[in-house]
This record gives sequence, structure tokens and C-alpha cells, in this order.
Amino acid sequence: MEHVIQVKRKALAANDAAAAELRQQFQSAGSLVVNLISSPGSGKTTLLEATIKNLDGRLTAAVLEGDVATERDADRIRALGVPAHQILTGGACHLDARQVISALDTSKLPTSDLLFIENVGNLICPTTYDLGEDFKVAVLSTTEGDDKPFKYPAIFARAEVTVITKIDLLPYLPFDMAAVKDHLASLNPSAAIFEVASTTGEGVGDWVNYLEARLDTKRNAGI
Amino acid sequence: MEHVIQVKRKALAANDAAAAELRQQFQSAGSLVVNLISSPGSGKTTLLEATIKNLDGRLTAAVLEGDVATERDADRIRALGVPAHQILTGGACHLDARQVISALDTSKLPTSDLLFIENVGNLICPTTYDLGEDFKVAVLSTTEGDDKPFKYPAIFARAEVTVITKIDLLPYLPFDMAAVKDHLASLNPSAAIFEVASTTGEGVGDWVNYLEARLDTKRNAGI
Repeated sequence: MEHVIQVKRKALAANDAAAAELRQQFQSAGSLVVNLISSPGSGKTTLLEATIKNLDGRLTAAVLEGDVATERDADRIRALGVPAHQILTGGACHLDARQVISALDTSKLPTSDLLFIENVGNLICPTTYDLGEDFKVAVLSTTEGDDKPFKYPAIFARAEVTVITKIDLLPYLPFDMAAVKDHLASLNPSAAIFEVASTTGEGVGDWVNYLEARLDTKRNAGI
Repeated sequence: MEHVIQVKRKALAANDAAAAELRQQFQSAGSLVVNLISSPGSGKTTLLEATIKNLDGRLTAAVLEGDVATERDADRIRALGVPAHQILTGGACHLDARQVISALDTSKLPTSDLLFIENVGNLICPTTYDLGEDFKVAVLSTTEGDDKPFKYPAIFARAEVTVITKIDLLPYLPFDMAAVKDHLASLNPSAAIFEVASTTGEGVGDWVNYLEARLDTKRNAGI
């Protein structure tokens, strides 16, 4: 057990060094980089599709997709005319910074205003792996139940933003939105919370405005 | 990387030895043991609640709950009068067989006809950890989307049973049931598939009948 912990610590230290390199690279490029983390099927890719549609070309975007298997998610993004590259982890339950460096090298994604990194669908493993992002976004779908921030507190405490998706299904679900927001605020008092229905577009504008404001802030701080 | 793989192999070998010990113990007790695996929020605990209600005392049951944090799921099961013990993994993304041995030692759960082990909500990590169970059950909610068996093939290939939950929400979702069933059959031709709505009870009877038949088969084989 002691041995396993040592190996994990070494892996995290190597990851942190690679993430620092990425952060420098993203800073130079002036890109805002977002690391999206959620359960499988919470609607990360659908949120990105809605985000791209809402942006309507005002800002450029690119997407790195992390999955255990298939090119499906990258294909969905490319169908909207946005460059995307699929990273297949071959079984690993999270992306690491060296995979991102290697993917950026081989994919030749163009420099963009926004770079979305969609992590492997998993509420646990991706939490501790820094990918050089500006901030982590936890995506929580109403259909998963309102107990998830209690049961998986680490990711909701670390994410600067939580996007609650599938709010169009609220009429059919037992989901206590007020309780969820209270608990999210107790885990991370400064976190921003958005409520969206990606398929109808409801709430997507607020989320996109937030991204635009964060990009402005980053670029102004860089002057 | 080579080193990490070696450490993982050793961990899996130690797990397999502990799982063999558990399997022997479950065989002697005449219990049917089911390892439930799914994404967070797919409805594993709600399925167990519906299962316990449907059983209505015809068979005895006990539950081991695996979670990163909170006693919530065990509390829900105990509220129905069924003994349950919560295993908190403290961050780990799956249960292992030694945790199950230790939990059975300390919890003094009574011997039961059915023992349900609800794994940590995760479609990746629990897949390769044998817990001495008779079979794995993959739980897939309709709200996660019909692409999940394509994106997480390993668990659906290994599970002898897939339970598709939340079918009461099908009218509001894009979910191609026929395509999902075809793909599940291609991943695992002999797997059983059940469609249930745990909150209304629809389809729960077929799943419970299957459990009863498997228990009978196990006990008759043991004579």
C-alpha cells in the first residue's frame, strides 16, 4: 500500500511539471483553457455543442476529447466545424498533462480563444490531475440525483464552476435544486453555478458570457 | 510507466487471491452475490430499494455499499429493514476484495440469500476487480445516453447482466433502445438485459425472478 502511494505521488509530481509547461504555453497563446469533468453521460459533449452554437463564431474554439474508447465525441464537435482531437486513454480513467502535451503536438490544433478539454467521464480520477487549465468545470446533470455533490465532494470543491445540465427534465425528477446550490456553496463558496438545458439552449448564454468575461480578464491580466 | 504497470499487476494478483477466499465463503453460505457497477447516479441504490420491496421478504438480503464519502446509501437500505454496511474508500474509485473481507468481518452482516455489493459509481475502475461475486451487473440509465456501451465497452462485455434503468423517462429522451440492445448483444452475446423503472416498479419483477432463478441454480449445483 505504502509502495502504491509512493508510485502515485511520483506520477502526480511528473504530471504537475507537465501541467506547468502547458499553462505557460496556454498563457503565451492567450487561450482560455477549461477542463470539463463529470460522470459519464452528464452531457459534457452536448454542452460543448450548445456552447459552440451560442458562440456563433464570435470566438474561436478547439476541443480535446478524452475517452476510453471511440472517436464519437470528437466527431460530434467536428460536425459543427470546430477542430477537435480525440485522446484515447486505453482504459485509464482520467487524462494527464503529458497526454495533453502529446495530443497538442500531434493534432496540430490551431491556436484558439477557447480550448475545451473534455475529460474522461468520471467523478473521481480526474480530480487531482492538473492539465494546465485556467479552471475546472464540474458538470452535474439533474438526472444523476441531487446527492452527488455530497457523495463526490472533492471535484465540486475544486471546480471553480459547476454547470447543472438537463434542467428541461426537472419536471419529471426528484431534484432539490436549492439544496444542491446550498451544498455546492458550502463546498466552494466562490464557485459560479449555471443551470442549463443544452438541447433547448436555456441558460447557455449565461455560461458563454462567463467564458467571454474570463477570457477578457485573463488577457487583460497578461498585458 | 513500466513500474506503474508492475504495481497494478501486483495489486490485481493480491485482489484475485482475496476474491477466491470470498467466493469460497459465499459458496459455503449458499448466498448469491451480485456486484453492481455503473456511473454515478444511474440508480443502483434505487434499483436495490425496488428489489427489496419486490422481494417482500421471500428471500433475505444484505447490502454492502461502496462510496467515496457519506453513509447515505446504506441509510437508504437500512430504512427498508435490510442490513447494510457502508465501505468508504476515501478517494479510491472502486472496491477491492480485501475491503469486502474486512467489511464482512467488522459489520457482522447476517448470512443472507442475496448479498448485493454496490460498487463505487464509476464505469471504469471497478471493471477489473473481482470481489468474489457470482456475477457483475452493469446498470445503465436511459438518461446517460445510448452511446455508453460503445464508449465504455469493458464493463458491458464483462457483466452477465445489464439493467437499463429510468425507462419511465424514455418519452423525454433521445435513446435508441434497439441500438443499445444490439450493441450489448455484440459485446456479450449471452448477457441478460432487463428494462426497469425502479420508481414505478415497472420491469422489477423480471429482474427479481432472474435473481431467484440464479440462486436456485447455484444451490442446486452445490448439492
